[in-house]
Amino acid sequence: MSQYHPFTPQDAIELAKTLPGPFAADANLECREIGDGNLNLVFHITDQNADKSIIIKQALPYAKVVGESWPLSLVRARIEREILQEEYRLCPGMVPEVYHYDDDLALTVMEDLSDHVIMRKGLIDGGTYPLFAQHIGEFMARTLFFTSDLGMNQQLKKEKQGRFVNPDQCKITEDLIFDEPYRIAEKNNYEPSIEDEAEALRTDGELHLEVALLREKFLTHGQALLHGDLHTGSIFVTPESTKVIDPEFAYFGPMGFDVGAVLANLLLHYASLPGRFQDQTALHERETILLNMVRDVWTEFESRFRSLWASDLVDPMAKAPGYEDLYVQQLFRDTAGFAGAKMVRRIVGLAHVADIDTIEDATERERAQRKTLAIGKALIKRNRNLNTIGELLDTVATAVSSIKI
Amino acid sequence: MSQYHPFTPQDAIELAKTLPGPFAADANLECREIGDGNLNLVFHITDQNADKSIIIKQALPYAKVVGESWPLSLVRARIEREILQEEYRLCPGMVPEVYHYDDDLALTVMEDLSDHVIMRKGLIDGGTYPLFAQHIGEFMARTLFFTSDLGMNQQLKKEKQGRFVNPDQCKITEDLIFDEPYRIAEKNNYEPSIEDEAEALRTDGELHLEVALLREKFLTHGQALLHGDLHTGSIFVTPESTKVIDPEFAYFGPMGFDVGAVLANLLLHYASLPGRFQDQTALHERETILLNMVRDVWTEFESRFRSLWASDLVDPMAKAPGYEDLYVQQLFRDTAGFAGAKMVRRIVGLAHVADIDTIEDATERERAQRKTLAIGKALIKRNRNLNTIGELLDTVATAVSSIKI
Repeated sequence: MSQYHPFTPQDAIELAKTLPGPFAADANLECREIGDGNLNLVFHITDQNADKSIIIKQALPYAKVVGESWPLSLVRARIEREILQEEYRLCPGMVPEVYHYDDDLALTVMEDLSDHVIMRKGLIDGGTYPLFAQHIGEFMARTLFFTSDLGMNQQLKKEKQGRFVNPDQCKITEDLIFDEPYRIAEKNNYEPSIEDEAEALRTDGELHLEVALLREKFLTHGQALLHGDLHTGSIFVTPESTKVIDPEFAYFGPMGFDVGAVLANLLLHYASLPGRFQDQTALHERETILLNMVRDVWTEFESRFRSLWASDLVDPMAKAPGYEDLYVQQLFRDTAGFAGAKMVRRIVGLAHVADIDTIEDATERERAQRKTLAIGKALIKRNRNLNTIGELLDTVATAVSSIKI
Repeated sequence: MSQYHPFTPQDAIELAKTLPGPFAADANLECREIGDGNLNLVFHITDQNADKSIIIKQALPYAKVVGESWPLSLVRARIEREILQEEYRLCPGMVPEVYHYDDDLALTVMEDLSDHVIMRKGLIDGGTYPLFAQHIGEFMARTLFFTSDLGMNQQLKKEKQGRFVNPDQCKITEDLIFDEPYRIAEKNNYEPSIEDEAEALRTDGELHLEVALLREKFLTHGQALLHGDLHTGSIFVTPESTKVIDPEFAYFGPMGFDVGAVLANLLLHYASLPGRFQDQTALHERETILLNMVRDVWTEFESRFRSLWASDLVDPMAKAPGYEDLYVQQLFRDTAGFAGAKMVRRIVGLAHVADIDTIEDATERERAQRKTLAIGKALIKRNRNLNTIGELLDTVATAVSSIKI
């Protein structure tokens, strides 16, 4: 048993030296703290004598973004480590391998992925990821199916659900996504130029009803073990490879919350593109790539999910005629609604995305913010009536065409 | 720490003597094992020198009904004790008071309610309980509202949900209610005269779809802390008093499962009445009483639940316009569907009810069984389209009028 204390780079090196691998006895270890998140320390340790490296991630007992005043349970480190191991078992090579962990120190030693790039940055830099939709579709289909009552023993699922009770992390989501954007709240964060939009969010009863229904689903629907924060900042990519990281928000919740997170962040990037391209042809080409990614992510996910339904179903009643289609329809609607909620909060809530915030021209940035809100609100309001990814993309197009600034 | 062993009556007396109350030092204690359930020992201990008595309930590590071959976790004793204490806090006097417990021995020492009668027996004996609907409506409204995200801190709810993970008990429900009645299964139990009905249950795809949806809700929808087995055999009554017992199936599930259990068991008794009354006027009078109880239980529950919504709501988004009505509508539909599923299983599944089984005349018994199945199937099939208790009662009447034997 170790006593919890936040590590220094030297502590991280000392720990690395005690590990059976990957470093040789004569390794010349260097360590840099590279965490850019708000909740953790991340140590990158490399052997200067060899092409070997590891990551040590340690949870902090508070959220840095608001100082030490927002305490967070260290339990999330154990939860993150357990779900990484679970996801590695279900999708080998799609999450970092866990080499070692210490739950008392709230730390995990894992595979270094620094040959990959964070997908949000990759997209901003103009990267294309032709295999991403297949990869993430496979990842979501397998992790969600095999941790749901469809694909795992239903009694083991209940025990596992008890191990993934994650109240502090869930509260962050409940507050920042399903509450604060819709009222005056200290942590809200938006530019004065869109005060009219923020005001509209606070007074739109139709929107509030749909957000309340999505919030209820997040609070009560223990459908599968979610990543819980599956945005493009939690995904490492190369053109050939996709790796999902940072599942510290994991808990048993509605599948559409994960799928919606991916779509939302692709759509956030899509909305930022006019602020990044002067050339209209290049802009249109890039927009098409992003919208096709949205389409492909859902299509790949649905197709793999339905394949697993055909091959690996364990629930005796789930073969009832029509049940699979109703299940997937509801999952798609949830996906659309959660995607919308995640877009709205990235404009007016505490945590923004670089896709939008790094647009230098204030008018273009405001245009992107309004476009994001229009798409987000439309997906939220229409979610219970959407049936196909084509209808979702039509909803996006209609929302975009309605923007006037 | 005590080592688990099943108690003898003498063990129970020895334990009673060590308790600070209610017995005097010179008490002359007698003990009878009165359990008629399948899963527990129940010791009734009385002081022959005074008007004092207690109950000691101890969980067995297996289900008696199928011999020792069906092992059950003793965790349910701790869960039952904790929910009794929780319900006593929320509804003082509506559950037995817990005096003492020993989780290692899987036993709880509690208030003796033998001045009450088990409601199922009371109904069979022709009793009327004019306050029952008010009492049970209040009990369900308060226990369900205050253990849901509507009425309790949402982070504490998650921790509590972890403490009430109850896989073995849930599996009994999943198998006996949401699976076996719809296929050939060893534990199914029905008379040869209704083989045609059992066959119809196995081949009705429309029914299977609705059962699959209800099963999914039972598996995933952690809405509130349920009693989990709220039939009329789990309720003690007098004309003035109602006490709920035996919450060992407690877990966080869909509210409609509890409300539906009460309605189902009133309707089961209603369906048994023609087998108990020769006189048509008396029969009609009693049937009206039962159908009015069904109406009143829902009405009282809904009215109290909505009052709590007005006075004790803690969820910031649940004030969204229209949300309360949608929430109650869904809860009503769930109630109807679960009521139907609970009726069907009592005819063809493992565990029957005395209301039906004690009808001596075979033809009348068969008629009651067919009537129950007709009502149950209609409620299951129509649940997603029902909006009012009047519509539910119309559905019952239509189903009853369709019976021909």
